Amino acid sequence: MPRLNGVVALLTDFGLKDHYAGVMKGAILTVCPDARIVDLGHEVDSQDVAAGYFLLRNSYRYFPKGTLFVCVIDPGVGTERSVIGVETGTHTFLAPDNGLLGFLERDEEVRRAVRITNDRYFLKPVSSTFHGRDIFAPVAGHLLAGVDLGKMGKPAGPIRRLETPSPREEAGTVLGEIVRIDRFGNLVTNIPGAGVPKDARIRLGRAVIQGVSTSYGSRKKNELLAYVGSGGCVEIAVNQGSAARRLRARIGQVVRAESP
Amino acid sequence: MPRLNGVVALLTDFGLKDHYAGVMKGAILTVCPDARIVDLGHEVDSQDVAAGYFLLRNSYRYFPKGTLFVCVIDPGVGTERSVIGVETGTHTFLAPDNGLLGFLERDEEVRRAVRITNDRYFLKPVSSTFHGRDIFAPVAGHLLAGVDLGKMGKPAGPIRRLETPSPREEAGTVLGEIVRIDRFGNLVTNIPGAGVPKDARIRLGRAVIQGVSTSYGSRKKNELLAYVGSGGCVEIAVNQGSAARRLRARIGQVVRAESP
Amino acid sequence: MPRLNGVVALLTDFGLKDHYAGVMKGAILTVCPDARIVDLGHEVDSQDVAAGYFLLRNSYRYFPKGTLFVCVIDPGVGTERSVIGVETGTHTFLAPDNGLLGFLERDEEVRRAVRITNDRYFLKPVSSTFHGRDIFAPVAGHLLAGVDLGKMGKPAGPIRRLETPSPREEAGTVLGEIVRIDRFGNLVTNIPGAGVPKDARIRLGRAVIQGVSTSYGSRKKNELLAYVGSGGCVEIAVNQGSAARRLRARIGQVVRAESP
Repeated sequence: MPRLNGVVALLTDFGLKDHYAGVMKGAILTVCPDARIVDLGHEVDSQDVAAGYFLLRNSYRYFPKGTLFVCVIDPGVGTERSVIGVETGTHTFLAPDNGLLGFLERDEEVRRAVRITNDRYFLKPVSSTFHGRDIFAPVAGHLLAGVDLGKMGKPAGPIRRLETPSPREEAGTVLGEIVRIDRFGNLVTNIPGAGVPKDARIRLGRAVIQGVSTSYGSRKKNELLAYVGSGGCVEIAVNQGSAARRLRARIGQVVRAESP
Repeated sequence: MPRLNGVVALLTDFGLKDHYAGVMKGAILTVCPDARIVDLGHEVDSQDVAAGYFLLRNSYRYFPKGTLFVCVIDPGVGTERSVIGVETGTHTFLAPDNGLLGFLERDEEVRRAVRITNDRYFLKPVSSTFHGRDIFAPVAGHLLAGVDLGKMGKPAGPIRRLETPSPREEAGTVLGEIVRIDRFGNLVTNIPGAGVPKDARIRLGRAVIQGVSTSYGSRKKNELLAYVGSGGCVEIAVNQGSAARRLRARIGQVVRAESP
Repeated sequence: MPRLNGVVALLTDFGLKDHYAGVMKGAILTVCPDARIVDLGHEVDSQDVAAGYFLLRNSYRYFPKGTLFVCVIDPGVGTERSVIGVETGTHTFLAPDNGLLGFLERDEEVRRAVRITNDRYFLKPVSSTFHGRDIFAPVAGHLLAGVDLGKMGKPAGPIRRLETPSPREEAGTVLGEIVRIDRFGNLVTNIPGAGVPKDARIRLGRAVIQGVSTSYGSRKKNELLAYVGSGGCVEIAVNQGSAARRLRARIGQVVRAESP
């Protein structure tokens, strides 16, 4: 098992306008004064588990071994949904078992998954609406302070998967869809870049892009382009502009990569 | 007196678009390189002292003993308003004396309150518009570095109170109001949950909610519910939706909790 | 040369909705586990190099000596633009050479400027769209871990300047313009406060302000005022309101300071 390195990365949908994210930090530090808290993000759209899944899956590999990820996007807070702690060979994750960690059993070797039930490590009384403060933060603090995950509860069953769209191939064309629109208005698809030839034709609605570029700057300013993004999938952008605005794109729209 | 633990939590209305919050961090670290800075929040609405009061009052208890809170929501910056440092049995606070700390004498035992006037601890020249950088940050740095609060100025008079609405009772009905709308569109009232029976009827405008639920999930998706929130007061929400949008609610609207 | 003090301040246009800023932090900590990361800001408007220049120039002096600034506002990512590391007598900067650091040769004594090319310090494979993760973060980590900047590449040529508007004087009137609008709706001009007498008349469009005030509070609530801001230049504000909204102001608008 990897030992924790003291870094705890927080991913929530609490936003930055309220006190919720700040209170979680205080509650972690109350249990483990030496914790090194890093904000991975708090501006996930409210209760958007799929967005949290995307962000976490594209992030965790870049954090040092031994990082603890505490992820609270939790529409089911206060219901029977479980809170789970999961250890892979490199990192540890704490999250509601609602699909947010659904990629772990596919992408990593899961060493241990525990259903967190031991209220000895909770902040009491446990509210029914703010488990970030009352369960996730103190449990994280105790893990960082050296308590073994196994003491937090019983072995969990299989981690809940999240239904995510898969691209499919049809006569030389890969059909995928937009799975994320980022701040720059770049459209991230689920089409793996590895299988798309450089001279492919990328279609989105009526827009047609000839060829897969290697950087934004390979097209003129304000021109549409397709390229393999930093997460390994095809993306569509406007050089120094917003493809989302230009194409009025939305998540779930079909994108086609046609081999010539 | 509690000794400071090196953690300094920042609450401001500086937002995150400008350099103001970042500069405060730099100015703290310049005086006290070991300070451990935690963002409690910077997205308080501009000059909204009441919002800052709400956030701070619902947060500070969850931070470790010895945390220093630096709170800069300061419409009177550059005028005769005082800057005060306040020590309770557990925490230390630095803020303009404009009501932001108005709950301390009610909720805590104030051990010491000092009007900060000793410009030896300021960054000079002191601007008239950015005391966050020129007064709050360096004073915080010196406190964290071990300077006694008493050296910063003279004993302060009573801490300025903030006019906050109080609920009142009338023939078995508690009349309160909405005091906060959070990111999720949850409506936080000032009606203490302790005095409201589980089968109470909650009214807001034309909306009537039967009973106080124990979690969002005790109602169907998109249904209105009332519950006792994480701050101990009655809240109104829509399960997996926004009560603020549904009810077009605003701060100050009357909420009634009627005993059956 | 100043030794680095372990503090790394991040300024990007990555926003807080995506994982980009968080991933940079992870990638820094992967190389240098002891790095102390401070967010200077991530909400710079997309690809707005001039805004980043303004924020950085008004911030760096307030950070401790030995701070490393990592600045990623980089519309040319993936093109031939250089990445440079620059050491002054007090701080170290890492940024694309696109004008973002254009003030350094004017304001500071530049001790060393290096074009970062040694891919031994990069995260491979280097993507063409996320150099924040693949170049800036690991290079920052290696600098913080003690690698000498000189090992990162070859001496750079002159740092690229940014065209910024200069005020000019005409018969006792200084003509400048709005260079920044902050969160409060305050209008920051490029007119140095030092040269403007206290009884000057400040004009913006049809608005005329008599005299330079010393604080917001020297005018009544909701009144327009001019004053010397925390960056040393003339600013226009509304006491407890927004000058930007009141005057429908925009960046680039002419402001006149007329001596009486």
